[in-house]
Amino acid sequence: MSLTININGVICNEENAKISVLDRGFLYGDSVYEVTYSQDSRFLFLDEHLDRLWNSASLLGMEIEYSRPKLIEEILKTARSSALEQAYVRVVITGGSGSIDLSRSSIGPQNLVIYVKERPLYPLEMYEKGINLKIVSRPRNDRRSLDPNAKSGNYLNNVLAIQEARKHGAYDAIMANINGEITEGSTFNIWMVKDGVVITPHENTGLLKGITRQKVIELCQAHAIELELGRFSAHDLYRADEVFITSSTKGIMPVSKVDGASFGVGNHQAPITQLLRQHYNQLVSQYLKSTGYSYANFSD
Amino acid sequence: MSLTININGVICNEENAKISVLDRGFLYGDSVYEVTYSQDSRFLFLDEHLDRLWNSASLLGMEIEYSRPKLIEEILKTARSSALEQAYVRVVITGGSGSIDLSRSSIGPQNLVIYVKERPLYPLEMYEKGINLKIVSRPRNDRRSLDPNAKSGNYLNNVLAIQEARKHGAYDAIMANINGEITEGSTFNIWMVKDGVVITPHENTGLLKGITRQKVIELCQAHAIELELGRFSAHDLYRADEVFITSSTKGIMPVSKVDGASFGVGNHQAPITQLLRQHYNQLVSQYLKSTGYSYANFSD
Repeated sequence: MSLTININGVICNEENAKISVLDRGFLYGDSVYEVTYSQDSRFLFLDEHLDRLWNSASLLGMEIEYSRPKLIEEILKTARSSALEQAYVRVVITGGSGSIDLSRSSIGPQNLVIYVKERPLYPLEMYEKGINLKIVSRPRNDRRSLDPNAKSGNYLNNVLAIQEARKHGAYDAIMANINGEITEGSTFNIWMVKDGVVITPHENTGLLKGITRQKVIELCQAHAIELELGRFSAHDLYRADEVFITSSTKGIMPVSKVDGASFGVGNHQAPITQLLRQHYNQLVSQYLKSTGYSYANFSD
Repeated sequence: MSLTININGVICNEENAKISVLDRGFLYGDSVYEVTYSQDSRFLFLDEHLDRLWNSASLLGMEIEYSRPKLIEEILKTARSSALEQAYVRVVITGGSGSIDLSRSSIGPQNLVIYVKERPLYPLEMYEKGINLKIVSRPRNDRRSLDPNAKSGNYLNNVLAIQEARKHGAYDAIMANINGEITEGSTFNIWMVKDGVVITPHENTGLLKGITRQKVIELCQAHAIELELGRFSAHDLYRADEVFITSSTKGIMPVSKVDGASFGVGNHQAPITQLLRQHYNQLVSQYLKSTGYSYANFSD
């Protein structure tokens, strides 16, 4: 799959998209990032993602040197250059290059890398049959040590979680915190439905407040679906009526299995998941009709 | 300070030392590293550092693709190319480049980066006067989430610790675990002496087992100095008779201050620290006379 990459304003292809090995992103994972996608040359919830990018930086004591309009301009430029109407975009801002020194005392300008590639569509079958997850033994990073609410270049905790899940034949990983409370997946938020109530872990358990998570919270409120931001264990999750996940790239995806526990999917067995999916897909369609930043009619 | 960099066997200078932005070290901090130095063209404890590099990889579920002799050859080649007799060397091995995917399912060969620069010597004054440290509020990564015993590309926990310490006017940071037990510094191990006993945190508190730490443990045993690998709090540390740190680049460095608590330094006020320093410096001198890998007499 071909990639269009923008490094500090210069568009490159995959082969020459390189960064200094003195970059703090490479040395220490000292970087922040966001991912979203476009449809018909319009970006989904880009403002929300940029808000979070700035919040990630703030949680990591980093001050982003780019202005927001400049960053949007570079994102649109990269997308336009890719000529893709359905695009995946990843924006990375690093602490810059300097001497090899853990402290941020002698660093140059921050580095900006924007990746654009074709939007990977998850097979319809996954949405129909649901996915198979595992609650891994490795706890999510404690928020006091490194807040999962910062999307950063430190993703080994998640890499190891997904590796553990795959080793056991699951598609992806759910992680608990060190107190055994379920927090989130490797790259998604986790939800369950129990006795008609939609429940997702409270942010204080230590998780990334997903953009899609926030939209689903708002949809529950708008449609008078009972919602709880709570604390629950693996055992509680096993006894749920319905389970689903949310992420910017996957939207709302039903879960058919967590460890040994099975869950119904589809309209009859998971009616609240399906209802929320309908509402969410409608929200996205509506948004993409007019609201998102478009790179369709630009010309140089 | 000029750098000589080896990327996958090719020697570069600082300007052209670049790596793909698809490298997993850059994207996720999915890499391992080690640092040591040379004196008179001979590397200190390189075997011990390479043992630990392999151990870091193993803790991160990564299998190093380079053979140990090949890696040593590349390190010596880079050092020789630098023409530096007193060199700092950093070896990084990353998970390789692939598609943008958290799982390690579609990745190419691992990337090897070796940095060589002039060895930074810490001023004698620091050893004479001691350094000023702060126990920061941010806890060290919990070992169940991401084991500090793996030296990896995920160093934000330490970056934020040192930033907090500097903000409060301290030279560097000491970190406790989430139970309040002292673990280690941002890039060093921490020690105290109380009533004639040398005490350093047990590895189970969650720390990197330093090479210098291990040498000091062995020196205590060889010289019948009472040693304890224990668990202690900030409060215990404040009441120590002597405090010092160990690291590969700093050796044994006395500490004069931790938060509000002051400690004596020098022969009279910190006799055990000074004794260990003498023993350690002697060990290093002895080792560097004949034992270490040398790049002095190579020719192309």
